[in-house]
Amino acid sequence: MAGTDHRRCAAGGGPAIILVEPQLGENIGTAARAMMNCALDDLRLVRPRDGWPSAKAIAAASGADRVLDRARLYPSVAAATADLVHVYAATARERGFVRRIVTPRHAAAEMRRHIAADEPCGVLFGPERTGLLNDDLTHADTVLTVPLNPGFASLNLAQAVLIVGYAWYLGGSQMPPETLSTGLSRPASKAELMNFFEHFEEELVKNGFLRNRESRPSMVRNLRSLFQRARCTEQELRTLHGVVTAFAGRRERKGEMPETEPAEHEAQD
Amino acid sequence: MAGTDHRRCAAGGGPAIILVEPQLGENIGTAARAMMNCALDDLRLVRPRDGWPSAKAIAAASGADRVLDRARLYPSVAAATADLVHVYAATARERGFVRRIVTPRHAAAEMRRHIAADEPCGVLFGPERTGLLNDDLTHADTVLTVPLNPGFASLNLAQAVLIVGYAWYLGGSQMPPETLSTGLSRPASKAELMNFFEHFEEELVKNGFLRNRESRPSMVRNLRSLFQRARCTEQELRTLHGVVTAFAGRRERKGEMPETEPAEHEAQD
Repeated sequence: MAGTDHRRCAAGGGPAIILVEPQLGENIGTAARAMMNCALDDLRLVRPRDGWPSAKAIAAASGADRVLDRARLYPSVAAATADLVHVYAATARERGFVRRIVTPRHAAAEMRRHIAADEPCGVLFGPERTGLLNDDLTHADTVLTVPLNPGFASLNLAQAVLIVGYAWYLGGSQMPPETLSTGLSRPASKAELMNFFEHFEEELVKNGFLRNRESRPSMVRNLRSLFQRARCTEQELRTLHGVVTAFAGRRERKGEMPETEPAEHEAQD
Repeated sequence: MAGTDHRRCAAGGGPAIILVEPQLGENIGTAARAMMNCALDDLRLVRPRDGWPSAKAIAAASGADRVLDRARLYPSVAAATADLVHVYAATARERGFVRRIVTPRHAAAEMRRHIAADEPCGVLFGPERTGLLNDDLTHADTVLTVPLNPGFASLNLAQAVLIVGYAWYLGGSQMPPETLSTGLSRPASKAELMNFFEHFEEELVKNGFLRNRESRPSMVRNLRSLFQRARCTEQELRTLHGVVTAFAGRRERKGEMPETEPAEHEAQD
C-alpha cells in the first residue's frame, strides 16, 4: 500500500524493539521497516548472527534507514534492557512457569502509560528459528502473546514486530473508525438534496414512471432513501441533476419534441 | 514466534483475500501464511504476473499449503468479486473522490456482522509496486486504510494482509487482555499466603530484622504488599518457605546453635 508523505514522519519515543540473536540481516531490515511504519525508532540488537552493519538489512528495509542507522548493538539481553523499567517478552510458546501474559493491545496501553510516566519500555523478540529462551524471559516482567490461529501461530520476525508496533501506533492514532472522504467537494446540505429530489421526481412524473398515483408515495420514499444513504456531495448532486436533464432531453428528442433551453444543472466532473 | 498446535487449526469462513495482479510468487506465499495465521482460507488471485501455481509461493508460505491449494484464479476483479456482497479496497492513497474509509478494526467488526447475516465479504489488495488502480476501486463499496506513520505508511503485501487478517481474527478472539499463567501450580489462597507471612515474620523477629518495634508494623506491611502484588502460586510459597528455612538454618549454624528438627516447609522445584 502506498501513501507515504515524508514530510509527515511521526516522531519516535515508543518502546525499544530488542532483537535477540536475529539470524538473517533481511529480517532485521524488514523489522526496521515495520518499526518505521509504526513510528518506532529504538532498535536494539543482541549478538546478530551475521554481524553488523548488514547490507542485506539495508536492502530489505525499503528506506527505513533512519531506524537502522540508530540501531545499537549489545553483548547480552541484560545489557540491552539495563536502562528499561518494563520489559515484555514476545512469545507464543507455553513455558510452564508463572508468567503474566498480555495481548499486544493491552501491552500497548500499558506501555503508553509507563512511557508517559517516564518509565522506559522494551519488547524482546527471539531468534527466527527458536524464539526466546527461558533464560531470556528472566529479563522480562511480562509475556506478550499475539492471539492467532492456534493451529498456525508462527509469525516471522518482521510480522511479529509489526503486530506489536501496530498495536502501539493504534493506541495513539487519532484516525476515526469511519470517515467519508469527499475529495474536493463537500457533503450536500439537505436543501440541496431536496432540490435534486424535486427535479428528479418532476421528470419521473413527466416521463410516466410515477404515473400510478397509488404507489407513487412509496416509490418516492424508496428512491429518496437510496440517495440519502449514499450521503451525496454537492458535486455529485450537480452530476445527478445533469444525468436527469440528459435523460429528459433524450426523451424529448425521441418524442420529437423541440429542444428547450440548455440544461439548467450541469455536471462538472 | 513458535507455539503452533496443528490439532487446533481454526476453521475458515472469513472474508476472501483478493490479490489483484500480484507480482511476486514469494509475496503470494507470505500472504497465504499471514492468512493462515489469522484463520482465513479464501485466497483469490487476479492475473498473478508470474503465473500460477508458483513454486516460490509454496516455499514462502512456510506450511500454509492449505491456503495455496484452495486459491482460485480469476481473469478480472469483477469476476473475483461477483459472489460477494461487501467489498473493501485496502489502500492508503488519497484518491480525491468520494469514499467511505474505515480502519481495519472497524472493517473487521462490520465483516463479522455481514458474514453472520450470510453476506459474503472480501478485501482487495493491489500489486506490490502500484497498489490498486482507481478502476479497481469501483468494485469496492468501502476503502480500508491502515492507520500508520504518515511519513512511512507503505506496507508490503503480506504485512497488509496480516494487519487486515489480524483485526479480523482479534474480533473473534476469546483471549483475555491479561492472564496469569501459573504453569503446573495454582494461585495460592490467602490462607496459604498468611501462613507464609507468619513463618517469614517469625524468622525476621528471631534474626533481629524486625527488632525496632516502632517501625515493625510498616515494615511488615511493605513486605506483605510486595508478595501480594506478585500473586504467588502455591508452589512458589512452598519454595519461599524453604528459602526462609534455609536462611534460618544457616544463621542457627553460624551461631553454633544445635540444629533443630528438619525444615517444616520444603521447596519442590
